[in-house]
Amino acid sequence: MAPIRLAIVGLGKIARDQHIPAIAATEGIELAAVASRNAALDGVAHFATLDDLLADSADIDAVALCTPPQVRRAQAEAALAAGKHVLLEKPPGATVSELGPLVAAAEASGRTLFATWHSRFAPAVEPARTFLAERAIRSVIIEWKEDVRVWHPGQEWIWEPGGLGVFDPAINALSILTQILPRPVFVTKAHLAFPTNRDAPIAAELGLSDVAGIPIRAELDFLQTGPQTWDIRIETEAGQIVLSSGGARLVHDGAVLVDEKEAEYRGIYARFVELVRGGRSDVDLAPLALVADAFLLGRRSIAEPFEY
Amino acid sequence: MAPIRLAIVGLGKIARDQHIPAIAATEGIELAAVASRNAALDGVAHFATLDDLLADSADIDAVALCTPPQVRRAQAEAALAAGKHVLLEKPPGATVSELGPLVAAAEASGRTLFATWHSRFAPAVEPARTFLAERAIRSVIIEWKEDVRVWHPGQEWIWEPGGLGVFDPAINALSILTQILPRPVFVTKAHLAFPTNRDAPIAAELGLSDVAGIPIRAELDFLQTGPQTWDIRIETEAGQIVLSSGGARLVHDGAVLVDEKEAEYRGIYARFVELVRGGRSDVDLAPLALVADAFLLGRRSIAEPFEY
Repeated sequence: MAPIRLAIVGLGKIARDQHIPAIAATEGIELAAVASRNAALDGVAHFATLDDLLADSADIDAVALCTPPQVRRAQAEAALAAGKHVLLEKPPGATVSELGPLVAAAEASGRTLFATWHSRFAPAVEPARTFLAERAIRSVIIEWKEDVRVWHPGQEWIWEPGGLGVFDPAINALSILTQILPRPVFVTKAHLAFPTNRDAPIAAELGLSDVAGIPIRAELDFLQTGPQTWDIRIETEAGQIVLSSGGARLVHDGAVLVDEKEAEYRGIYARFVELVRGGRSDVDLAPLALVADAFLLGRRSIAEPFEY
Repeated sequence: MAPIRLAIVGLGKIARDQHIPAIAATEGIELAAVASRNAALDGVAHFATLDDLLADSADIDAVALCTPPQVRRAQAEAALAAGKHVLLEKPPGATVSELGPLVAAAEASGRTLFATWHSRFAPAVEPARTFLAERAIRSVIIEWKEDVRVWHPGQEWIWEPGGLGVFDPAINALSILTQILPRPVFVTKAHLAFPTNRDAPIAAELGLSDVAGIPIRAELDFLQTGPQTWDIRIETEAGQIVLSSGGARLVHDGAVLVDEKEAEYRGIYARFVELVRGGRSDVDLAPLALVADAFLLGRRSIAEPFEY
C-alpha cells in the first residue's frame, strides 16, 4: 500500500522537535511537503502558504496543522474541501463550537479528521486507565507547573486570545484525565490569573468532579523554575498511583509500574495512518470544553505583567 | 390522561412572573409543590429544599429548576435519580461539560430532560427561521442592551462566576440566532468588560461566523437606560429583516410580518408536556457553548465597579 503523502503546515518548534522525527519513524506515511512562510526543509517541496500548497497539491493526501490554534479552523476547512485528510495539533481550535462544522465537513467529504492529544499516547496512560477501571477512586490532584520561558520561548500567540496561556500545557493534563477516568468530568470551580499585559492566564486553580463526586483539583503554573512538574496523583481504594513526567512514568504505592521513554508522536502518526486507512475520524472535544468551562466559570485576578 | 404534577424549585422573579402563570394556562400540567427556602405559595405544598421535596414526593412527576445556574446540575441529578422529569431554566447549567452526564442520566432513567431557551418560543422566531431557510444571508447584527437594575434588581448571583453577567440576557439572543440560521455558528472574536468588583462581564462585543462566512456581530450592554434594545437585524439577498422586542416582532423592509404579545413560557410548558408524554428529551447546548467560547477567546478589559 502506498504511503500517505503528508504536508506539514507551520514549521515551528513542535513540528521540528516532534512531528518530523515521528513521521520519519512511522510506517505508511511520509513527509512530502511543507507550507511555512518563514522556514523550509531541505529536500522537501516548499510552499509559502497552505493555499499555495492546495492549489498545487495533486500528490498530497493529508496535512498536519502545526500552526497556532487561532488559524487552524480555516486551514482545516480549506484542506478538507480540497480532499485532504487533516491532523490537528492540540488544542484542535480556538473554540469548541468551531469544531462541530469541521467534523461534519470531514464526514461529508469522506476524509479523516484527527484531533490529536499527544499526552494520551504517553506510555503510562493506558496502564493507568486499566488500573483505575477496576478500583474505586477517592481523589485526584493534578500539578502542571512549567517554565514558559523554557518550553515556549518567544511564543507570542500563546498569550493572545485563543492561545490559552497556561492551559496550553495544562490541556495535556486534562486530555490524560479524561482518558483515564471511568466517568466524564466537569469543572466546578476555577480561578484564573491574567498578567496585566496579556490576554491569557499565567496560572490557575481548578476544581473538578465526576458524577460519582470524586474531588479533583488542578494547580497550574507557567512560572515554575527549577524542577518542572507534570504529575497526576490519584488516591484509590487500592493505594496511590502517580503519573509523572507528563505520563511517561507510573508509580503505585512506591513501586514503579512504568518508566519509559516517551514516543507520543509516533503513537499519533501510527493512529493517523490507521484512521486514514479505516476511513474514520477521531475528534474528542472534552479537554477543550473543560478549558472553555474554566474560563466561563472562573474568577479572574490580575497578575504581574509578563515579558519573555 | 392525568396532568403532570410539577414542583417549582426556586421561587424567585422568573418563577413568579413567568412559570406560575404559564403552568396555570397549560393543559396537561399542574403546579403541585414549591421548594424554596424563603418563599411559599398559598394553596401549594411547600418544602424548604429540593431534598426535602424528593424525600416526600411520591405524587410529584416533574420539577422545574428556576434556581441560579450554579446549583442546577446537582439539583437536576438528584431529581432525575428520584425518577422526576426535569425542566431547566436557561442557561441549563454553569458549564457545558456538566450537561453531558445529565443527558446520560435522563436517558438511563427514561425521564425527560428539557433545557429550555424561552426566547426560541417568541412569536417571530419560527417565521424568521422559515424566511431565512430560503434566502442567502449577507450579515447579522445583534444588539442586546438592557438595564440590569430594571430586569435583574438585586440579583447578586448573576455577577458570580457562572452567573454570566450580560450574557444572561444575551444568551437569549444566541438561542434565537442558533435557531433561525440555517448553519451552525461559532465565535471568531470577543471582547468582554468586567467591572473591577465583579466576576462576570457587564458589556461585550462578539464576532461570529458560520461555515458560509456570514459576518455576525453582537453588541451586548447591561447598562442601557432609556429605550431597551433586543434586536437582531439580518441583511439578505431579499432585503432586511429585523427581529425586535426579543423576538416578538418581525419586520421585512419596513413591512410588519409579526407583532404579537409574547407567550414564551406557555410555549415552553406545552413543549414540556409533549416531551414527557413522548418519553423524549430536548437538550441543545449550542447557546451555552457559544458563551463559553466567548469567555475562552475573549480579550478582557476592566470596567467601572458596579453596584445595584
